Amino acid sequence: MVTTTNAMKKLLNRVEDIVPESLAGLAKAHPDVVKIDAANNVVLRAGGPRRGKVALVSGGGSGHEPLHGGFVGLGMLDAACAGNVFTSPVPDQMEAATRAVDGGAGVLHIVKNYTGDVLNFQMAAELVAGEIEVASVVTNDDVAVQDSLYTAGRRGVGGTVLVEKIAGAHAEAGASLADVTATALRVNANVRSMGLALTSAIVPAAGTPTFELGDDEVEVGIGIHGEPGRRREKLSTVDEMADWLVEPIVSDLGIGRGDKVLAFVNGMGGTPLIELYVAFNSVARILEGKGIGIARSLVGSYITSLEMAGFSVTLLKLDDELVRWWDAPVHTPALRWGV
Amino acid sequence: MVTTTNAMKKLLNRVEDIVPESLAGLAKAHPDVVKIDAANNVVLRAGGPRRGKVALVSGGGSGHEPLHGGFVGLGMLDAACAGNVFTSPVPDQMEAATRAVDGGAGVLHIVKNYTGDVLNFQMAAELVAGEIEVASVVTNDDVAVQDSLYTAGRRGVGGTVLVEKIAGAHAEAGASLADVTATALRVNANVRSMGLALTSAIVPAAGTPTFELGDDEVEVGIGIHGEPGRRREKLSTVDEMADWLVEPIVSDLGIGRGDKVLAFVNGMGGTPLIELYVAFNSVARILEGKGIGIARSLVGSYITSLEMAGFSVTLLKLDDELVRWWDAPVHTPALRWGV
Repeated sequence: MVTTTNAMKKLLNRVEDIVPESLAGLAKAHPDVVKIDAANNVVLRAGGPRRGKVALVSGGGSGHEPLHGGFVGLGMLDAACAGNVFTSPVPDQMEAATRAVDGGAGVLHIVKNYTGDVLNFQMAAELVAGEIEVASVVTNDDVAVQDSLYTAGRRGVGGTVLVEKIAGAHAEAGASLADVTATALRVNANVRSMGLALTSAIVPAAGTPTFELGDDEVEVGIGIHGEPGRRREKLSTVDEMADWLVEPIVSDLGIGRGDKVLAFVNGMGGTPLIELYVAFNSVARILEGKGIGIARSLVGSYITSLEMAGFSVTLLKLDDELVRWWDAPVHTPALRWGV
Repeated sequence: MVTTTNAMKKLLNRVEDIVPESLAGLAKAHPDVVKIDAANNVVLRAGGPRRGKVALVSGGGSGHEPLHGGFVGLGMLDAACAGNVFTSPVPDQMEAATRAVDGGAGVLHIVKNYTGDVLNFQMAAELVAGEIEVASVVTNDDVAVQDSLYTAGRRGVGGTVLVEKIAGAHAEAGASLADVTATALRVNANVRSMGLALTSAIVPAAGTPTFELGDDEVEVGIGIHGEPGRRREKLSTVDEMADWLVEPIVSDLGIGRGDKVLAFVNGMGGTPLIELYVAFNSVARILEGKGIGIARSLVGSYITSLEMAGFSVTLLKLDDELVRWWDAPVHTPALRWGV
């Protein structure tokens, strides 16, 4: 007998209960931070809507935890809508979230660029039109591919975490909907990502790996739902694999000597932290070689693809204002500092 | 072609460089918090020894990240010694760490109960005897087995994280070596853990899984190095599997209706967060049924076994003083709040 990932070995009761039970666990673990609208699978900031504060709503398919529910709380999101695994939430969920968090100053929808998410958030905005002012920012930071399974244009991936943190801090400071939206757009314009997979995830309802990959193969430019990337390569050193990700990002972002970045090395869910720090070391060495400074960093599994092994790199070109909002206090289940 | 965990697919350059490169990455990602003594593979709190503060030193084999290096910083450890993967650090490392952090108020060694770790920390204490006052607390919270591969008596596992946090807060507040030691002992006396594995880890130097487990099998009472547990079971619902862990803990700890605990659901490295929150929900339901209150919680992969899939449960019986030290500010790579 051997251990294989082809067998679905997960911590769950019934497959159809994994999302509501995970949300219930989130609320029980962090009752001071979040509560759950169980009828809609929406994670809400504890304490009700903040009068006069722009509210931030995001959401998407489950399976990318802590994104998005783990980012609800002070200085980040006011609500997150959880779809089924790798499936967009429906407009009713987004409408319920938008109504629940509106404090009279408008609501910003932060939407990863996947066709279903974009369409459904648009419909939700239409459902509250005339009652609540809604703006929307679509994140599309993945440089791996133009158009993809589920997406027209670039996919929204790791940069979304940074958009949510930085726009959330600006909103917490009392900025207007127009200003918070402008900040979110500015982060999205200055952030790029790319990832690779060593293994596939297994969607619970499917029970088998989403894609097949040889024992010595890597999918370079993988999407967070297992969508195909740019190419397959033989497994290599992490130095070389980091190079496969950093080069397209740096090139696309147009950064070079003297620029400062936030460097985010993200685990896809099944890769342990010892390896993520090895990968961060590789990324840091490559950036040092280019004269690009790492002013801030984030290392961990923050936007995942179930138990997929692999990592992604996200670079955000920083300026003083973005650093200030990044450093501002945040208190969510998954990101916390300053409070 | 199929994806299997039998093939070693890791983010590394040379196998022998994984520990120093991971430590280098840790320091590059968190230069405000930690620095590395690269000659000794020791993680040190940035800014040098704190005059008059009791210093806390821990360490052990690598492969359990973020334990221990990720817990170095304000309000927790002053140094962590990193051995090779699943291999005890040597006394020279522990001596170097002890000398580097001594601020004149004594040093507490926090040692997980594995024969090599215990012996080597003892030797390190002898090497500085007459120069630095050293106390030692051996954690042994794993209720799964008495004696085990690598261990006489119970193994030290998840409770170690709580000992480091709580004793670290007491030391940060200026307590004496005797008082910090007493607090560490009190946490260890009131904490119990047990874990299970869905898959094996692969030690890089070995290149193959540490143990074999059928596609429908679970090792109940697993150690963090893949040591055998109590028994093998068929994979079951997370509700039932959580029960296999919680019952022995509650029984051994002797807690019941009206007691308050810190509930810690820990991922073994390869299990994604969506599943850990499902598991937390199961644990919370079981405790609710017993009238045991969850006053504090921790959910995430904090003491891991490389890419092993599975989880452990740790319960700490709380009193007001332990809650106060748990809530105190902490700023390390892996745990941060209040600052």
